[in-house]
Amino acid sequence: MNFKDKLNQIVTRNDSLLCIGLDSQLEKIPFHLKKTKLPIFEFNREIIEATHDLVCAYKPNLGFYVGASGLGGLLQLKRTMEYLAQNYPEIPTILDAKLGDIAHTNEGYAKFIFDYLGADAVTLHPFLGKESLKPFLERTDKCLFILCRTSNEGAGEYQDLKINGKPLYQVIAGQVVHDWNSRDNCGLVVGATYPAELNIVRHIAGKNIPLLIPGLGVQGGDVQKTVSAGIDTSGSNAIINVSRGIIFASQGEDFAQKARAEAEKLRNAINKYRSKNG
Amino acid sequence: MNFKDKLNQIVTRNDSLLCIGLDSQLEKIPFHLKKTKLPIFEFNREIIEATHDLVCAYKPNLGFYVGASGLGGLLQLKRTMEYLAQNYPEIPTILDAKLGDIAHTNEGYAKFIFDYLGADAVTLHPFLGKESLKPFLERTDKCLFILCRTSNEGAGEYQDLKINGKPLYQVIAGQVVHDWNSRDNCGLVVGATYPAELNIVRHIAGKNIPLLIPGLGVQGGDVQKTVSAGIDTSGSNAIINVSRGIIFASQGEDFAQKARAEAEKLRNAINKYRSKNG
Repeated sequence: MNFKDKLNQIVTRNDSLLCIGLDSQLEKIPFHLKKTKLPIFEFNREIIEATHDLVCAYKPNLGFYVGASGLGGLLQLKRTMEYLAQNYPEIPTILDAKLGDIAHTNEGYAKFIFDYLGADAVTLHPFLGKESLKPFLERTDKCLFILCRTSNEGAGEYQDLKINGKPLYQVIAGQVVHDWNSRDNCGLVVGATYPAELNIVRHIAGKNIPLLIPGLGVQGGDVQKTVSAGIDTSGSNAIINVSRGIIFASQGEDFAQKARAEAEKLRNAINKYRSKNG
Repeated sequence: MNFKDKLNQIVTRNDSLLCIGLDSQLEKIPFHLKKTKLPIFEFNREIIEATHDLVCAYKPNLGFYVGASGLGGLLQLKRTMEYLAQNYPEIPTILDAKLGDIAHTNEGYAKFIFDYLGADAVTLHPFLGKESLKPFLERTDKCLFILCRTSNEGAGEYQDLKINGKPLYQVIAGQVVHDWNSRDNCGLVVGATYPAELNIVRHIAGKNIPLLIPGLGVQGGDVQKTVSAGIDTSGSNAIINVSRGIIFASQGEDFAQKARAEAEKLRNAINKYRSKNG
């Protein structure tokens, strides 16, 4: 099954557009787990067990794993991906790695992300152009989320530069939708922190192009604006990611229950605005 | 010692602007090494032993290591970095990873690249803007090579888009040189496959900004044009990278000697044109 079908099935089954970002920074993991052999994996496993019926996807970010302890971190990411594949194969996984090398090198990264880690999707930089992403674009069973208008404060420095009067992020959105997506395996990343830009990208993208939308919660995005700007006319195809706001809702032994409570609240808040706008 | 001083010292000592790209793809490693426990590391070790007096830097590309076998590949990259730090601490290492996430995540990547792997420099995407790269920019002992005009065939798709009549890659070069480089720890990546653009970036960069220049050899860049366009008025600050053309010059048991012969030829060819233009 390809990514887009997998996504649609779980959105229906779990009635959710919520993606949980497994940005499981070692320093923030509850104290009692730090004594275990694989604390990041144990943390993720409990978060997954507590939330798997509330999400449409999980999105681990590679930077937190290799940043924690290099090989040890990568091992725990691999264990997390294996755990998800074995226990919840119906939930899509998005490896947030923001890669983008020349084509010859991207062959290695595509193997790593899709075959070794078994992710269903990856985030990619557009800067080297379509030609460079060939090894990813050829994977019709996967989804490539191309960075378009990112959630960070300084995102506009380049993404808003005008090309014949049109901001770069809109040029990218148009190219991805009308050209790169010829195999129906592309999506776009747009931050919840910029609802006006999100709204424009959704109009460029039309129906059936999934938008990956980080930036709710700690980064400050607003649920109502995000939902009404991000969903397509089917009321779906918005993958709304929250990381820290859910997984670190508590740093005590109740972290998993607190994460579930937070996830449920967000899933329901999203659905409230989704039904108004869908 | 910071990166730029380290670079200048080795350029003088080895009389070389040649950087060897340790793009040590498992499939291409000589057959007799494949029986060893850490074939990529053994391959790199022999290449380093045969070439360390001919180079100004080594540049492993993360994609080939994680692409080979995930954890096993990362382990061999770590061993290679440790081997270089222990035996040739005077030779700068550039981790080619083309990263670029939001600031919070880049903290993890900076720890991974600089502290865990011990690299002296890294390659980064400019797409998320200066604000996102803060955790890298704060590292005054390191060097950040910002992607500007890459060596690949399709590089122009976005990098040549005009902003008020000026191509995006020139806008980036100007920003990096006049703003991002306030701590004197930035360089730029420009492909040898585009000597005209390389020449323009060198003029924007002026003196003392190192340019990392991949694309000679298999990718087709020309030595004379690369040198005359890439060096600054001191005849230096061009880090001219060759990967496959050197490390896979032979796939037999003589691979290290053949790599040395190829490296020596290129070092000398670069120096011939360097003295004419310096």
